[in-house]
Amino acid sequence: MNFNLEKSIEILERTPAVLHAMLQHISDDWVLHNEGGETWSVYDVIGHLIQGEKTDWMPRAEIILSEKTDKTFESFDRFAQFEESKGKSLPELLDEFTRLRKKNIELLRSKKISDKDLDKKGIHPAFGEVTLSQLFSTWVVHDLNHLGQISRVMAKQYKSAVGPWIAYLRVLQS
Amino acid sequence: MNFNLEKSIEILERTPAVLHAMLQHISDDWVLHNEGGETWSVYDVIGHLIQGEKTDWMPRAEIILSEKTDKTFESFDRFAQFEESKGKSLPELLDEFTRLRKKNIELLRSKKISDKDLDKKGIHPAFGEVTLSQLFSTWVVHDLNHLGQISRVMAKQYKSAVGPWIAYLRVLQS
Repeated sequence: MNFNLEKSIEILERTPAVLHAMLQHISDDWVLHNEGGETWSVYDVIGHLIQGEKTDWMPRAEIILSEKTDKTFESFDRFAQFEESKGKSLPELLDEFTRLRKKNIELLRSKKISDKDLDKKGIHPAFGEVTLSQLFSTWVVHDLNHLGQISRVMAKQYKSAVGPWIAYLRVLQS
Repeated sequence: MNFNLEKSIEILERTPAVLHAMLQHISDDWVLHNEGGETWSVYDVIGHLIQGEKTDWMPRAEIILSEKTDKTFESFDRFAQFEESKGKSLPELLDEFTRLRKKNIELLRSKKISDKDLDKKGIHPAFGEVTLSQLFSTWVVHDLNHLGQISRVMAKQYKSAVGPWIAYLRVLQS
């Protein structure tokens, strides 16, 4: 499937509702535990998605679309949520994410991105030249990646409860 | 986390709304393609979840709770959906799943399952004795497993569109 802006927005604008349906008012047991060690809980993942809205996707798109000579992106802080989410409840984080995503999609639509714009480039701090369409594709896949992670983290809370069925459940083996 | 019936129902009763939020009226490009070879599309997965509601979870729970001497489960047909879904649209399948899941949760609640019931056993055709709590845990994990699969199958449609970011996206490497 080739990149398509409208089909990308289809996914991006659904994510807040998907997270609400999965997580709003669910028991803490499902959202506060992780997969062991330094892995993230569902709560941590929502904080990370908020950071993406604030500092990653649209800010990087704006660098690519700008007239700046140096189009190098700021590094994204994958651990900022451990400080930023402090004291906030999961429903508060879900509402914050919903609000930020809505604003970012409005901002994205206001840019009236053309096919030519999609080929414009920025500089990723780790792997160099990337295009606007690659950035937007990654935004979409990043949402889906973390939806998958959330499902997996929740599933793992029942890793021993399933008994011998573990053999059939790919999600518990990853 | 130990098995808990109410916390299990929390997940089971959310799944139809999660699938609606993710998939209702989305472009065919996201739901009709698979991960290559004999893998399943999102459309196939929804058909599989419907089969589970019809022939797997509650029918097996009823065998365990019955007075039968032989409590061996029927084998579950993992490919029935290729015949059963024929001619149905995705919105039709989502509605069918929603209806069946609602009915099964009502049936489950009507059983007034006790802690003693949760230890009752049935015979799985492949790995022998399993308890009712293991069956219900597996129902929950099975939902989460397929939500993860759906996210992954959708994400993979943009496998080449993300360019160099593929290195950071675990979902595209599985």
